[in-house]
Order: sequence, then structure tokens, then C-alpha cells
Amino acid sequence: MDHLSKRAMDVLAGVDAVAGYTTYIELIRPLIEGKIIITTPMTKEVERVETAIETALNGKTCAVVSSGDPGVYAMAGLVFEMCNRKNIYVVSPGNSHEMKTDSRNLRIEVVPGIPALCSGAALLGAPLTHDFAAISLSDLLTNWEQIEQRLKAAAKADFVIVLYNPKSKKRNWQLKKAQEIILNYRDPQTPVGIVARAMREGQNVQIVPLKDLHKEDVDMQTTVFIGSSASVTYLNYMVTPRGYSNKYFLNKS
Amino acid sequence: MDHLSKRAMDVLAGVDAVAGYTTYIELIRPLIEGKIIITTPMTKEVERVETAIETALNGKTCAVVSSGDPGVYAMAGLVFEMCNRKNIYVVSPGNSHEMKTDSRNLRIEVVPGIPALCSGAALLGAPLTHDFAAISLSDLLTNWEQIEQRLKAAAKADFVIVLYNPKSKKRNWQLKKAQEIILNYRDPQTPVGIVARAMREGQNVQIVPLKDLHKEDVDMQTTVFIGSSASVTYLNYMVTPRGYSNKYFLNKS
Repeated sequence: MDHLSKRAMDVLAGVDAVAGYTTYIELIRPLIEGKIIITTPMTKEVERVETAIETALNGKTCAVVSSGDPGVYAMAGLVFEMCNRKNIYVVSPGNSHEMKTDSRNLRIEVVPGIPALCSGAALLGAPLTHDFAAISLSDLLTNWEQIEQRLKAAAKADFVIVLYNPKSKKRNWQLKKAQEIILNYRDPQTPVGIVARAMREGQNVQIVPLKDLHKEDVDMQTTVFIGSSASVTYLNYMVTPRGYSNKYFLNKS
Repeated sequence: MDHLSKRAMDVLAGVDAVAGYTTYIELIRPLIEGKIIITTPMTKEVERVETAIETALNGKTCAVVSSGDPGVYAMAGLVFEMCNRKNIYVVSPGNSHEMKTDSRNLRIEVVPGIPALCSGAALLGAPLTHDFAAISLSDLLTNWEQIEQRLKAAAKADFVIVLYNPKSKKRNWQLKKAQEIILNYRDPQTPVGIVARAMREGQNVQIVPLKDLHKEDVDMQTTVFIGSSASVTYLNYMVTPRGYSNKYFLNKS
């Protein structure tokens, strides 16, 4: 809760209903006592968003909550997809006068938040000071060939790579495969930051060389930061300098 | 200020000194009345961080502020680079017992924030629901060939591309060149979101087709979001669906 913005707090205080995955609802429970709570399990996000939209169309304001930022691999996209599919006319909060009389209208405000790539980076030091690519290893909605192509492209062009959804109980081989692909382009000693549950109970932060990534304990609540060729470790921190010209400004440790 | 986290507010309230670029200091002025203020112009960030570190070593707590998140193309990296260069031993806030008696010690906490890629995305709708790459077009510290290589790789592998530092008075050709490179791989009608001064005075949000990007008014306080092949517009919003299988779930508008 310390890392929510004032705007997020104000919106949560003002709404009639809150929709979210059970785990995330629990994280903000003290802020939403007395409100209508719409929870569904992890894989039922379509039903959750549908219920949230119906709730709002019926005149009750409803917040859809995600962990991190709602736009980064999270629920904001699904809300807009669903409005599109249902031909619901969307206006921004300041534009009520634009509402249409011949269709259903919804005022939507996306409240930005701190994504896992920023909370994780803050705990690691400063791994994202230069160009980076975010790639989800979940092949539930994306085919694996596309994911591999992106891993290769990002590794070859020397981006810092942030891996979302690196592993789950059912998806247990993708992270090792990603490591193999990236090792074709990057030094085995490249620092890799592994952050689980940033700013939450059970927080865990580790920095390991790329060659050992497959040995680490990683789950769905973990974000993995693969350094670029310029990334170094300093003491217990992972740092990517601002520009390539600065690489030798740093003493590798 | 509405988009600062409680942790950022608490840290600002507790420190003796605040170091930052003048524009950003002005944005939080009401929060830091009565404190030591260390400001330097935009290009003098090395001196600013050096002064902040000296201030902290002399026993006064000092916050170094950036806009957005301090880790994304911002000051956190430089603070660690400088500590490395000066052989300052860095410990995290909870670990004072680890301090060394034979060197200078600094306790550093990186407080994560909402990066421009999230505040901008929130205003556009949901352009970052799937894989994306962040690329700075500033060639002051990075050579242009490297930037071009990354633009090509990201465009070819169909990432949503977030461009930081797209243009300044002196760097006026890079954005047009980036547009040309990306047009080799992407449809001219690909939606591009252009967000200036997100959540600040003078905020401006536009969505244009990629082919028209070069005509738009863009400056250093602007972030540019180039859609992937899956990104669509719906009404005044830019949306990237969650996975490729969902592309045809959306009606293109």
C-alpha cells in the first residue's frame, strides 16, 4: 500500500465496487471495507472484467485492480477490448458531454501505477538506465515461436531484457529455453536480477550470472532482469550505465 | 503530485536535502519547503549527483528526484555509477549493521515511481498490454548505429516500441529516421500514440498513423508509443490486445 499513488487511493476510496484477482484484493483490503467486491480466480479474468463493466453500466462506479501498473501485461487492455466487442462507447472522465444518447456509455480512467519492472529494478539497484525490452514467457495467448523470435531479437540487439511470467507450475521449460537463446548472444557471466514479490510479504532479491539462471527458484510472482553487455554488478547491486560510452567509467566487481 | 506514491511522499517529508533538475523541483515545491535544495541545469546531472552524495556523506539525508521512475533512463543509475567510481560502500536501508569501518558508507533506497511509459500508456488507453521495447533516441551517450540496430530489431520482432527522448532543439532528425526504419517493417497505418507532459500542466495526447509521425509536434517532454502489428485504435484509444490469438477479437475502428 506504501507504493500506491494518491490518485489510486482516492479512486479506491470513491468507488462503489472493486474487481480483482483475490490475492490483489487482499493486498488492499483495508482500503475497500464496505464496498462491493468482485473476485474471480486467476484464469477467470474475462468474467471478472465483464462483471465489472456490467456493474458500471448499471450505475455503480467500479475499480478494476491489477498488481503493478494496470497497463503492463494487465487488465486495462482487456477492459478496452471488452468495450470494443460489446460496442460500448468509452469517454474519458473529463468528457461527459461527449456521451452518446444512442448507445451505452462508459467513463473510463486508467490510473497508472508502478510496474513490476520498476519496483523490481529499484530493489536491484538500477538495471534499466538504458534501453530494455519486456517479454512475457507465457505462451497461453501467444505462440512460442513469436516469443522465441522476440527473445532472439532483444538478445542480439543488446537490450536489457525483463521477463514477465517466467514460470508457473504448468509452464516449467520456457525460462530455461529463454536462457539458452540469450546465451547465444550474451556472456555467461552477464548479471541477472531475480525479484519475487517486490515490496510485498515474501520479497526476495537475487543476482546470479546468466549461466546459473536455470538453477534458481522462479515462479509467476517473479520478474527476471537479464543484463545487457553493459550491465555490471557493484556490491549487491545490478547497474546498467546510462550510455555505452560510460561502460568503462565503472569498475566491474 | 497526485501520482507520487506514499513512500515517495514519506521520504521527501523526512529528508534534509533534495537534489533535482529545476523543473522537477518546482513540481514538488509544496512538499519540500524549508529543505536544502540542490538544483543544476539539465546537462549538469553529474555535478548534481556528486553534490547529493557529498551532502549525504556529510550526514544529511538527501533525496535525488527524477520525473517518472528514477530507474528508467533516470538518476538512480548515475548514483550507483558514482558510488562505484568513488569506492563508496553502499548498503540498503535495512542493513546498517553491514556498514564498513574502513570505508565511506552510504545507505541508498531507490523509491520506485510511475514511469512515463505507464503514465503515457494510461492516457492512451492500453498500448502496453503485450511485449514492448523502450528505446532512447538520444545519441549523446550512445552511438546512433547502436540505436538504429535496436530500432530495427524491435520493429522486426513486432514489439510495441516506446521512444524516450524523441527530439530536442539540437537533435531534430532522429525521430524521422526512426519512423523510416520502423516503416520498413510495419504498416503505415499502425497507430502511434504521442503523449507530452503526462499528468502535468500542458498535457497533450494524440494518436496518429505511423506514416504521419514526422509531421507531429514532439519535444523532450514527449513519449512516443509505436503500435505493434496487433495494436488497434478504438474511438480515441490505442489498445494492444493481450495475445496474438486475440487480435481478431477486436473490431478495428
